[in-house]
Amino acid sequence: MPHALTLNAGSSSLKFGLFELGDGRGEPAPRILGEIDRIGSEPHMRATRQDGTLLSDAPLPGEDAADHAGALARALELIARDRPHAQIVAVGHRVVHGGPDHAAPVVLGPAMLDRLAALEPLAPLHQPHNLAGVRAAFGAFPGAVQVACFDTAFHRHHPWVNDTFGLPRAYYDKGVRRYGFHGLSYDYIAGRLAEIAPHLHAGRVIVAHLGNGASMCGMIGGRSIASSMGFSALDGLPMGTRCGQLDPGVVLYLMQHEGMTADEISDLLYRRSGLFGLSGLSNDMRRLEQAGTDAAREAIAYFVFRIRRELGGLAAALGGLDALVFCGGIGEHSVPIRRQVCEGMGWIGLELDEARNTRGETVISTDLSRVRVLVIPTDEEIVIARAARDMLAARRAAG
Amino acid sequence: MPHALTLNAGSSSLKFGLFELGDGRGEPAPRILGEIDRIGSEPHMRATRQDGTLLSDAPLPGEDAADHAGALARALELIARDRPHAQIVAVGHRVVHGGPDHAAPVVLGPAMLDRLAALEPLAPLHQPHNLAGVRAAFGAFPGAVQVACFDTAFHRHHPWVNDTFGLPRAYYDKGVRRYGFHGLSYDYIAGRLAEIAPHLHAGRVIVAHLGNGASMCGMIGGRSIASSMGFSALDGLPMGTRCGQLDPGVVLYLMQHEGMTADEISDLLYRRSGLFGLSGLSNDMRRLEQAGTDAAREAIAYFVFRIRRELGGLAAALGGLDALVFCGGIGEHSVPIRRQVCEGMGWIGLELDEARNTRGETVISTDLSRVRVLVIPTDEEIVIARAARDMLAARRAAG
Repeated sequence: MPHALTLNAGSSSLKFGLFELGDGRGEPAPRILGEIDRIGSEPHMRATRQDGTLLSDAPLPGEDAADHAGALARALELIARDRPHAQIVAVGHRVVHGGPDHAAPVVLGPAMLDRLAALEPLAPLHQPHNLAGVRAAFGAFPGAVQVACFDTAFHRHHPWVNDTFGLPRAYYDKGVRRYGFHGLSYDYIAGRLAEIAPHLHAGRVIVAHLGNGASMCGMIGGRSIASSMGFSALDGLPMGTRCGQLDPGVVLYLMQHEGMTADEISDLLYRRSGLFGLSGLSNDMRRLEQAGTDAAREAIAYFVFRIRRELGGLAAALGGLDALVFCGGIGEHSVPIRRQVCEGMGWIGLELDEARNTRGETVISTDLSRVRVLVIPTDEEIVIARAARDMLAARRAAG
Repeated sequence: MPHALTLNAGSSSLKFGLFELGDGRGEPAPRILGEIDRIGSEPHMRATRQDGTLLSDAPLPGEDAADHAGALARALELIARDRPHAQIVAVGHRVVHGGPDHAAPVVLGPAMLDRLAALEPLAPLHQPHNLAGVRAAFGAFPGAVQVACFDTAFHRHHPWVNDTFGLPRAYYDKGVRRYGFHGLSYDYIAGRLAEIAPHLHAGRVIVAHLGNGASMCGMIGGRSIASSMGFSALDGLPMGTRCGQLDPGVVLYLMQHEGMTADEISDLLYRRSGLFGLSGLSNDMRRLEQAGTDAAREAIAYFVFRIRRELGGLAAALGGLDALVFCGGIGEHSVPIRRQVCEGMGWIGLELDEARNTRGETVISTDLSRVRVLVIPTDEEIVIARAARDMLAARRAAG
């Protein structure tokens, strides 16, 4: 039975999914979803079947998942045990950066892999790990179609004013652009919206992808017009440990007056800032909501405020707003965050229905709210699986 | 006759004003306004009386204005020639940075001057020149009251969410905050609005100060709630040669992959970016409007787009919008920029009256526009003169 494997490699984690492809035309059917985290230190694997049956939730011996290739081997062992007849004919990879040229998934080969490796300076903390996952998969499945799905691809049709910074044009030409990320999630939400509310999909929509990484995307007709994220995964909303929007003068100050090196500043802005830095406590929104300290409350208030400010800015980029969609771990699960984001938004025609929000319904605005507010669980894995399916079909059609 | 002198020292320029104070209670009356630019290279002085009579518009011998003290001496000679009986009892200085503690003007003495010098790392390109002007004035008028008016002071009551960045709290405590600038201009506009439209002054107002430096300020009841500028004079809107909003990841990239030093990046972001960098042509909006090249048009489009996006973000910070005020050289004089900023803003209740805009009236929105749009010429000098007058009166009252 032909299957697609999806891989989403982070700095010390590997998410994997096994999807049955059937005749290769219908929706890929998830069979196993899993994640190995703390690769290289204290690896732990958790995996379930599509029906929720737990297949693993246990530490791995450190030497068994010392790197991404080892972690992939452990994931494949689990898959082989549970679905011994699954034939993996396509592997879909989440790759954070596709550079300026890729607005769609691509089939991976040695030349493409080299081109994507050349983009590592644009995403030094993510791209190398993504490509390590790709190389491990090439080793494990030399005959499968390998497909890269880029977090940047969904945003590649931004108008120029949303793609450039206010720098000399040579920097734009050499790739210093507002790429935007979380594109797989936005792609999924756009597709879901087309199914459940085509009139909203056709309009002006802001999607708030709020997880440990967080960004917002303004779309018209399901196409990205603007994003809160820019060149790197640092800009826009504050995140679990990332700073979000920051005056470039602060970076100069840290260099010139605090004597920090680029690596030290990078560590500060990527790993010690955001909710964690402001709260002094945790990068985890649930922990902050429970903590109840002043610093935790202030960290949450800042997170909410920046979402609201970005919402206004993106609405201006769209020329108004018809719908706001929450997704991602925080967006899907935090009733108080959704409430605080939507409070006092009557000026833009948005009114939350508190009871619907508390019950976690799909539509959480009031019937009279001109702007619809929705909660849609996102699914990046199925977007990768669909791309793998489509590339496989294209290759077969091409002979 | 008691007079106040106002001084506004830039990196290579010195603006000066002579104001008659009368009984020290009424509005200071401008008598002479002038500017010496290109100090240290090819100095040039231009000055007029209040009625527009030209007093000077000529180069100065380089050695006559080799530094700010020399430039001040030339300005004082001109003043003494034209108003020999003017007795300068107070000198008001524009000082860009007052740090976290100053929400109002202060009387300058040696201790205060030391405290302000300690803020130089927060505004390395402006503060030293401002203080050079102060020191020169101390030498010239040892008996006068010397007053500092801070560009940051108007913003010091921002809510915490508009004052902090998403960094560890220690950075906030050591002064890495969203100060905001152009406070003298915003202070003037707030006061003017209270006179001509008190109902708007009481409401939610965004002021767009658009000059070679540019920022926007959101106010409620005449108090600043949020600004587009943050820690430095780089953030927010793109400017003549400054970049405006920039992903901090770009600065890291320039360090790590272009091998640029902090000073080189500072030079790039302050002096070679913005309208100049994008157009490759000029930092002057009038020249760009006349140029008609694609690059000039795109630079203008980016400037306009960022104003619109900031307008949406600030409206969210204010919880809606009642009025938009344009000021500064571009805001007061560019009909096309005002038109492009206001185009398609019906979603926020704003409709421009094109004929009023072209005629340059004070109110340029239509009668049916819910959001009023105004053009108000700003006047930073009178704000400095008023502060000088008030501090003089306070000192006299104190004995």
